[in-house]
This record gives sequence, structure tokens and C-alpha cells, in this order.
Amino acid sequence: MSSKSADAAATQLSQLRDAIDAVDTQLVDLIAQRAAITAQVGQVKRQLKQPLYVPEREHSLIRARRQYAEQKGLAADLIEDVLRRIIRESYRTQTMQATPTSTDLSRPVVIVGGRGRLGQLLAKLFGQTGYQVTVLDKGDQWTDELAAQAQLVMLSVPVNQTVGVIRQLPALAADCVLADVTSVKSEPLQAMLEQHSGPVVGLHPMFGPSVQNLAKQLVVVTPGRCADACQWLLDQFVNWGAHIETSDAGQHDEAMGWVQAMRHLSTFSYGLHMAEENADIDALLQMSSPIYRMELMMVGRLFAQNAELYADIIMANKQQFPTIGRYLERFGEALGYLEKGDKARFIEQFEQVKAYFGNYASQFLDESEGMVQLADDQRFRQQHGG
Amino acid sequence: MSSKSADAAATQLSQLRDAIDAVDTQLVDLIAQRAAITAQVGQVKRQLKQPLYVPEREHSLIRARRQYAEQKGLAADLIEDVLRRIIRESYRTQTMQATPTSTDLSRPVVIVGGRGRLGQLLAKLFGQTGYQVTVLDKGDQWTDELAAQAQLVMLSVPVNQTVGVIRQLPALAADCVLADVTSVKSEPLQAMLEQHSGPVVGLHPMFGPSVQNLAKQLVVVTPGRCADACQWLLDQFVNWGAHIETSDAGQHDEAMGWVQAMRHLSTFSYGLHMAEENADIDALLQMSSPIYRMELMMVGRLFAQNAELYADIIMANKQQFPTIGRYLERFGEALGYLEKGDKARFIEQFEQVKAYFGNYASQFLDESEGMVQLADDQRFRQQHGG
Repeated sequence: MSSKSADAAATQLSQLRDAIDAVDTQLVDLIAQRAAITAQVGQVKRQLKQPLYVPEREHSLIRARRQYAEQKGLAADLIEDVLRRIIRESYRTQTMQATPTSTDLSRPVVIVGGRGRLGQLLAKLFGQTGYQVTVLDKGDQWTDELAAQAQLVMLSVPVNQTVGVIRQLPALAADCVLADVTSVKSEPLQAMLEQHSGPVVGLHPMFGPSVQNLAKQLVVVTPGRCADACQWLLDQFVNWGAHIETSDAGQHDEAMGWVQAMRHLSTFSYGLHMAEENADIDALLQMSSPIYRMELMMVGRLFAQNAELYADIIMANKQQFPTIGRYLERFGEALGYLEKGDKARFIEQFEQVKAYFGNYASQFLDESEGMVQLADDQRFRQQHGG
Repeated sequence: MSSKSADAAATQLSQLRDAIDAVDTQLVDLIAQRAAITAQVGQVKRQLKQPLYVPEREHSLIRARRQYAEQKGLAADLIEDVLRRIIRESYRTQTMQATPTSTDLSRPVVIVGGRGRLGQLLAKLFGQTGYQVTVLDKGDQWTDELAAQAQLVMLSVPVNQTVGVIRQLPALAADCVLADVTSVKSEPLQAMLEQHSGPVVGLHPMFGPSVQNLAKQLVVVTPGRCADACQWLLDQFVNWGAHIETSDAGQHDEAMGWVQAMRHLSTFSYGLHMAEENADIDALLQMSSPIYRMELMMVGRLFAQNAELYADIIMANKQQFPTIGRYLERFGEALGYLEKGDKARFIEQFEQVKAYFGNYASQFLDESEGMVQLADDQRFRQQHGG
């Protein structure tokens, strides 16, 4: 290429970059315009007492734009990712809002443990929705009037105190709903059923107290007694945008043995091991593939959180401990045969596990690609600031 | 609200939704317009022999749009996420292109193991960039001429065969660069230095063979001999968009003991344990918090991949096995004291690990939030199709 045509190409490159900058500026304008419209939608929904999050509307909106993207020669997934990110932001910036589902707003909702972080969130949600909220925490006393009038008593106390707190509840109105939000369900549910002869339901909100609102958040419900009389409470969570999954308490606790005890303890042990071996975190990050960087983040993030909370959660799942013991045996066995060079055994077991995961293995591989890419973007966000 | 004003509000909601749809359509148009411009940028860069990925340009582009977003009252992170997603797509859709950095394109580049997946990618990269590529794989013979003329011999063979293949190489030209892409570095590097008296360098590409191009991909370089004479090869990877990190082979292998042996073996054991305990994947998914869903995906995805590859990688890091043994001891110890209810010990160890992670703990917690959100979006993508 002659220096003249090189100059021309360099000029063209500079012009094209200006064109990209202009498009990106329009993109920001358009997203701001969209945010202004969704804020209006929020106001109108408040007037109409409609829920913030409407899955069907979101689904049809994304489907239509996917189709249009394909017509324009773009990857449909690109548009879906961009729209989901923008929509997520619009939920984040909208305050909590919902119609109350109880027929009598004059009767109090009592949050026991309402000064804890999750308790505060619940108190705020009920309060903003128009309920009369009474918070009881350590040192606070029940009055006879409160016990007689409460339409809902919701327990949000540390997992190792839940049963004790339930046993000390006063007699409640026959139609009062007694509910808890503990991360294990069998024992608290049993204790609630023994304590109160009216409506009882166990809830496990699968989100932390830092969420801005409940849009798309998962709540596992373990029914206790008088499901009809508890329905307004579940409807209230749906109005707040939550997604409800029903399970029996035993099945829930078995799943949590995996999700909580096994996973948290193995993450804890991994971090402990790194600390005691004094693994060089900087070197690990420097030489990390996106996927390992992600795994390292999953370990490290645990230790930015509360030690006591994790101790309580793990110890509340004691029924899982023998299973965890068998995990360590299997791990030790695999280490042993690999030390002896028994590759065939590894491959044989690998194939058994592959069969167990079935279609999930490749589904997880596909789904995790998007997350691996994001982990990679994060790496560059980190390095280059931004 | 009267039924008349409710009707008016419903009409307004419908109009607002139409307005959102119109904005989203413009958004697709704008992204398509941007894609058309970046395709032209690609062509001009090819003329100018400039690299596809220019970190500084990307950084300044994002910084400018973050500032503009803040002026418009939008979250800067929202715009950064959207732009990074769009930019990633533009790399994905652009074909590999780069200027050759060798001064003599007439001398062959030999890819040993060039019919393997990574070998094919390397052969394609060198070929598209204008090199004369010769692929040698099982059953192929070296000719005297090829050995005398090659400017680069690059080994891309399974990790347990690398050293054996190196020892069988013919005598190469004194200035020929000998390089490998094995996932462990000390032994192959030592073998290459013994086999060839000219330039030697070890490479570990931290990406899979399925990447579309090398933009932003990490390559760890462990120098061997005559770094100056190897520089054109490293420059070539930079021209392909890769990011280079230099390490000594020992430090690399120590890090890989964590990244590969420890992590892969613990993921394998976790999957094996789930299979043998017949854990109910559906129930786990149904009751998963976003973060656990992510962790479950990280386990399941392993088993969509190649058993032999993982066996070889783990067994190539045998030096890590005693360390892994100590991990199991620590895990067992923690399980033991938790069984006995020793919460204080857990909290004490937790605080020690927190101190070890230092600022990384909260940094990882912050960074992982974005990924947790994406995992949550994925859940809805899954459920509602799209």
C-alpha cells in the first residue's frame, strides 16, 4: 500500500471511529429515553395497582426484538442480552410498589426479628404497601392486644434461634398467619404447627437482604396448615414481583443440605486451604483463565461475608454431615487412584457422572459460556478501570 | 380510582408500552448500524495492518460514554455493560486478521499435532496471516528440508506426550524457534532446551480451541532461550489480539497446580458425589439461589467435556497431589469440629481466611454480583424460552 493510500485509510479509520462515537452517544440517549418511559409505566402501574414485573410482557417484548434483530442480520442473543441488562436496570431503579392483598389493612403485621437485615427489608416492604407493621426484636415485649389483633406474625431470626423464638410466642388469633423465613424448614414448620393452631406456612426467600426489590426473586414455600388462609401472603409476594416455588419441608431441607451445608463448607475449606498453603492470589489471577477467575471469585466472596451466619447455616444442616463425609472419602479415593496412575478408573467414573448429568451437562456448558464471557469482561474492567 | 380514570390509565399504559417497543426497535437499528461501521473498521485495519483489538481505544470509548451516561442521569455501569456486550459481539463476528511479524514468510511454520483441535486453530491463524504452514501429526514424517528450513516448530500435542515428541524432533536450523503450547511448562521447557540449542519459548494459551479469534485472550509465556529471537512469535500473538503474561515455568506450574489439578479434581469429585448420592438435579435447580445455580453449572459443565483431557491435565500436575491431600485433611477436620458444635473454631478460622484474602474478598463479592445477576437472567431465559 502506498503512503498516500495509507494516509487515506488512516483518515477513513478516524472518520469511522467518529461515526461509532456518534452511534454510541445516540445509544445512551435512547436508553435514557427508555428509562424515562419505564418510570412513567411505574407510576401508571401504581395507579392501576398492577405488579411491577409481568413475565409475559417481558417475554413477548424480547421475542419480538429477537425476531427483528435477525431480520437486520444481528445475533438474536446479542439483543436479548442487551435488553435484559436494560430491563434489569429499570427494575433496580424503580422503588418497591405493590397492591396489598390482605382484606384488612388495619390489623397489624408483626415482624419478629425485624431489626435484622432481612427483617428490615420485610418491614419496609409491608410498610410501603400500606400495612401496619410492628417490629419486635430482642428486648421487645408482646402486648395482649398485639397478639390478639395481628393478622400475620413473621419470624426473621437467626436459624439457630428460630425454634426457641417460636416456642415463646403468645397465643395468636385463630386466623392469624404464622410464617417464618428461616433457611431450613422442617423443624421450624413443625414448631410453628405445634405452637399455633391456625394458618401456618414456611417461607425461604432465596435472596439476600441487599436486593432493591423482589422482582424475579425466588421464594420457596413449604405449606403448613390452612393453605387458603395463607394465600393472601403468597399473593403479596407475587405482587412484589417474586417467583414462588412450592416444596415440602423435607425435600427443601434435603436440597439445602446440598445448596448450603455441602457447598458452603466446601468453599470454606477451599479458602482455608489456600490461606494455610499461602497460595499466591496475585499469581493465580495473573494466570487465570476466565473460568478459573470466576471460581476463585466464588471462593473469595464467601469471606467478605458474615462468619457467624455461615456457621449457623452449615450447622443447621447437620443431617447432611454424613453425606459430606462420604464426599471426602470419594475425593480421597480418586486422589489415591490418580496417584497410582489409574487413568482408566478416572475415565470410567467420569462417564458415569456424565450419564447422571444427562442433558444438563451440555446445557450447563452452553449457559455458562455467557457467564465466562462476562467474567472476562470483568477482568478488563478491572485492569483498565472505567 | 374511578373506572373512567382506570380506563384512562390503562390506555396510557398501552401507549407507554408502544413507546417502549418503538425505542427498542430503534435500539436494534442502532446496534445494526454500529455493526456495519465496525465491519468497515475491520476492513480498513486490514489495509493498514493494524491489530483488531486496541485496548486504549476501547477504554477511552467506554470512559467517554460512561461520563455521558452520568450526565443523562443513567448508571454508568449500565452503559459500560451494554457497550462491552456489543463490542464483544463485534470481535466475535470479525474474522481473524493480523499482520505477520516474521521477516521471512517463505520459511515454513511447522505445527506438530496440527490435526488436534488447538493445533487446527493455530494452523488456521498462521495460515490466514500469510505464513507457509506445514502440519505434522501421528504417522507424518519430517523431511530433512523441512527441518532445515522451518522458522518455527510449535508443538500442540497431549500433555502426557509432549516430552516424548520433543525428544524425537530432528535437528532444526540454529535460528528456528522451538515452542510448545502445553498446559504445564517446566518439563516441556527443559526438554526443548536439551533438544534444541537455538531459540526456545514455552506458551500456555489460556483459552479453548473454540474461540473465534484471539482478541483479549490470555497467553502465559515462559521464556527459554534467546528471547530476542522469539520476540516475533510473541508479537504475532499480540497482533492477533492476545494479552501476554510472562512467568517463569516453576511459578506457572505452581499456579496451575491450583488452577488445574486442585480445581478440576475437586469439581470432578463433587460431580461424582452428586451422582453416587443420586442428588435430584431438578429439585436443586428449582430451589436454587442464582449463586448456587451458577456453582451447579460450574460442576455440571465439566462433564460435557473430554474425560481423557481432564485425566491428563490432572495427572500432569502430580506435584500438587500432596497439597490436595492436605486439603482433604483440613476439610475433614472442619467437618469434625462442626459436628461437635464448635462454632467458635469455625469463626476463628473464617477470620484467618478473611485476613488472607484481604481486599480481594470484598472485591470478589462486588465483581461477582454482576455475574450473579447474569446467572439470574439465564434462569429466566431458560424458563421462558426466547
